[in-house]
Amino acid sequence: VPRYVLLIEYDGTDFCGWQTQKDQITIQEEIEKAIFALTKEKVVLFGAGRTDSGVHARGQVAHFDLTKEISIIDLVRGINFFLRPNKIVIISACIALDQDFHARFSATKRHYQYLIINRNAPLILSHNRAWNVRQKLDEKLMQEAANYLIGKHDFTSFRAKFCQAQSPIITMDKINIIRNDAQISINLKARSFLHHMVRNIVGTLFLAGIGKIQPEYLQVILQAQDRNIAGMTAPSTGLYFTHIEYDNNLDIMAMLGQK
Amino acid sequence: VPRYVLLIEYDGTDFCGWQTQKDQITIQEEIEKAIFALTKEKVVLFGAGRTDSGVHARGQVAHFDLTKEISIIDLVRGINFFLRPNKIVIISACIALDQDFHARFSATKRHYQYLIINRNAPLILSHNRAWNVRQKLDEKLMQEAANYLIGKHDFTSFRAKFCQAQSPIITMDKINIIRNDAQISINLKARSFLHHMVRNIVGTLFLAGIGKIQPEYLQVILQAQDRNIAGMTAPSTGLYFTHIEYDNNLDIMAMLGQK
Repeated sequence: VPRYVLLIEYDGTDFCGWQTQKDQITIQEEIEKAIFALTKEKVVLFGAGRTDSGVHARGQVAHFDLTKEISIIDLVRGINFFLRPNKIVIISACIALDQDFHARFSATKRHYQYLIINRNAPLILSHNRAWNVRQKLDEKLMQEAANYLIGKHDFTSFRAKFCQAQSPIITMDKINIIRNDAQISINLKARSFLHHMVRNIVGTLFLAGIGKIQPEYLQVILQAQDRNIAGMTAPSTGLYFTHIEYDNNLDIMAMLGQK
Repeated sequence: VPRYVLLIEYDGTDFCGWQTQKDQITIQEEIEKAIFALTKEKVVLFGAGRTDSGVHARGQVAHFDLTKEISIIDLVRGINFFLRPNKIVIISACIALDQDFHARFSATKRHYQYLIINRNAPLILSHNRAWNVRQKLDEKLMQEAANYLIGKHDFTSFRAKFCQAQSPIITMDKINIIRNDAQISINLKARSFLHHMVRNIVGTLFLAGIGKIQPEYLQVILQAQDRNIAGMTAPSTGLYFTHIEYDNNLDIMAMLGQK
């Protein structure tokens, strides 16, 4: 049975997140329904990461097994046809050469982006696409604060209460903060992330950006291992699951046209 | 009578362009109506440039005269309140220190951006925000072609038939083309542009990008002074009026918080 891999973009605004839930419209279920409409096979779709309600993806990766043979071109066109008018699109697809490939467990790095528009005026072109922060943010202070999170740490202070991960220990590879006029882009990379971790980090960097906490205070927050000491959970609307890396031997991203 | 200057963002999708037209919903008229709702004064709003139906603005500038005195904060909040639910927002405002300031005639440089998403899959996150080009574009060929347009030229070949400008002679200061994965951003700068000029240039650079014309052919197109020899008019949906420069003595952009 061939294992198909999909590269997926979606606007998370209208969905209750990635993962199928009873009586909720989710991205996973809408794609599974489109695959069924096309192939008449009931498949289970495994995503590289479960995004929350309102969170977007530019490059979610997911896999499923299909008995039926179908060309990649027909698969992509067919799923996209049946996905309409959902704000989800299959960018590309491939067949995993290694039958053990798993969208979630084979992932070696995950990349997220968080967008802030730092201005008084409400958002128009970035409506539902960014967090509108009115207080003046100093992105240099935010970067200084973020630097304390780089490396291997216990991220309990940045973890949602209902997070199901076995361990709160995460190695953060990168947090880069770039301002472009009113837009502040926060780019993060790690092997894995805890539930709400990016949004809780952004809510804490926000406190550093407005000068409410000193950048060094991030050390105290980490050491406290207490969710209540860190900042708020930043709105889902600014968060993008942008890119996933896999072992080069699997060649998945190249086959998806992303290399 | 003080002259107020507005910095404006809008999503052009739902509008018949900037300029007021009978029985059409336009950006100019919607802002004039909001100013009237707030101040009970009928004003005429003069924009730095008239954008077409579907064209967006990140930094349109416009001015109007008002008898009534009103603080800048109340003006911006009030117009934005009455603009809802239109996809238009006043980012900031100021009073022109020079009573002769004119949003259109005092402008010294205009900046436009054109966004292409170069991929097979339909657009989701950039729906109505970019031109979806499926054929593979070579951005280096596009830049080579664009370089022939830099400097002072007769742009008749890139001018809409109904263009009202007195002269087709334009000095193009800059055309920079940057690819970022599937996204190609074309950034243009000149004192002024002819009607449809950016979109006609983009439609012609597209031909160079897919290899249908050689970059050098842009010289032939310029010399022909014939609209029919250049490429198609690229869709309005990818075009952004991003920024306007004024004489530094007027200090308008600084007062609008854009410097």
